[in-house]
Amino acid sequence: MSADPSLSPTMLGSIRIVLVEPQHPGNIGSAARAMLTMGLTELTLVAPKNFPDVQARVLAAGALDTLDRARVVPTLEDAVADCAYVLASSARPRHLGDEPLKPWEAASRLIEEAGRGSVALVFGRERTGLFNEELDRCHAHTLIPANPDYSSLNLANAVQLYAYEIRKAAVAAPEVSAKRDNHWYRAPTAEQVENLYVHFEKVLMATGFLDPANPRLLMRRIRMMFNRARLDLNEVNILRGILTSVEQPKRRTRGGAPADDGDGGA
Amino acid sequence: MSADPSLSPTMLGSIRIVLVEPQHPGNIGSAARAMLTMGLTELTLVAPKNFPDVQARVLAAGALDTLDRARVVPTLEDAVADCAYVLASSARPRHLGDEPLKPWEAASRLIEEAGRGSVALVFGRERTGLFNEELDRCHAHTLIPANPDYSSLNLANAVQLYAYEIRKAAVAAPEVSAKRDNHWYRAPTAEQVENLYVHFEKVLMATGFLDPANPRLLMRRIRMMFNRARLDLNEVNILRGILTSVEQPKRRTRGGAPADDGDGGA
Repeated sequence: MSADPSLSPTMLGSIRIVLVEPQHPGNIGSAARAMLTMGLTELTLVAPKNFPDVQARVLAAGALDTLDRARVVPTLEDAVADCAYVLASSARPRHLGDEPLKPWEAASRLIEEAGRGSVALVFGRERTGLFNEELDRCHAHTLIPANPDYSSLNLANAVQLYAYEIRKAAVAAPEVSAKRDNHWYRAPTAEQVENLYVHFEKVLMATGFLDPANPRLLMRRIRMMFNRARLDLNEVNILRGILTSVEQPKRRTRGGAPADDGDGGA
Repeated sequence: MSADPSLSPTMLGSIRIVLVEPQHPGNIGSAARAMLTMGLTELTLVAPKNFPDVQARVLAAGALDTLDRARVVPTLEDAVADCAYVLASSARPRHLGDEPLKPWEAASRLIEEAGRGSVALVFGRERTGLFNEELDRCHAHTLIPANPDYSSLNLANAVQLYAYEIRKAAVAAPEVSAKRDNHWYRAPTAEQVENLYVHFEKVLMATGFLDPANPRLLMRRIRMMFNRARLDLNEVNILRGILTSVEQPKRRTRGGAPADDGDGGA
């Protein structure tokens, strides 16, 4: 029951739904059902409160396979480590950063990026959503335009809406865009990009540019800037090389430009 | 909490969600919540199995007002009697009749028709959907394009999808189209159209054209034809007049064309 004969299985199979710390197991089951109705089968759960759980199974209805195959991981970082593109579903407009994508824009983007590798759409906790640190791990965020007086969608209903838009976008997409116009592009994994930020922060503290009394805002802005830029793997490696060169100025004499395909040092 | 300041309240307020014989009270509450997140507040329940019910209240979350204002009626006929346009949400393609509308097409149609008066979007029972006789009472039907291997959306999730598309269509709509291009059009109520069909069937049996051994298919085709035509009130009255003239041929000497605004006889 995993394949959807009317669409390229690789396309929808590359799109992962991530639920961060879902509190109600019923929502997990309902989300699995909502996903499968639109042909999505890849579910990852970050530290679910109760799972496995009978209530999840009841509400999954005919989507038990999807539920049983769900991957359970301890952190969001683990959930998206191998992803080339990560999109956050946000319950409220973000104060810092770009305008959120509309759901249909988010769906088109995910379909487009799915041609390059695994992508993830991340949903936060039922009551408190995603923390800012989690949002900052994502390339962009998306918001469902809702009634401003009451915008609180149930978690599984939000998953249903996005899954529906993703299916619409997949049907509308021309033949799988596995090959991009820009053949040079090789997507880094989220883990590789995350290592870059860790490295960056370490260097900025070492140089004194990052004020430990108020460290967060600066790193968030840097993350957003690079997330928007959609770094290519070579660019990540180059930046890592630069950071290493800042850390070890004495070794600067070893050479000029960093190696094209090196691991970037550190 | 009923009004939605960002949209014309009359437009969304004219769109009624009708749930036919919902079995699980939780779905009623979830549907009320889904509606309100998109600014819809008019909920009608046809013979709900358990209502009011505490589970409905729990799942309505912040949409208790919408739930408490829900109208409970014994039949679908009662639910849509005053409606100028009635759309059926169908879980499967219909064998007889037109292609189902896509959800976004359905939403645009509802918004357009809401300029003329009350309109309804009807959802069937969780397991069995709407009966054919119920589908035949509707002007058109709409189907969510889903995974052909597993297309069973939860009832409240289906309500959520349509409410979302309705809100999108309302936002996209130009200034409320209360006035149509065709100023001559006056919509009949569903009850007036229903009376026409009853009258029609009676006459067809009297004339012997309708075979009582297989009466259903003919009337369904007639309903579909007229539903598609979107009869104007004058046209309904003219047809009623014609039917009356068939029933009472001896009175044909009374005059030619039927009165423009008469009740159509019978």
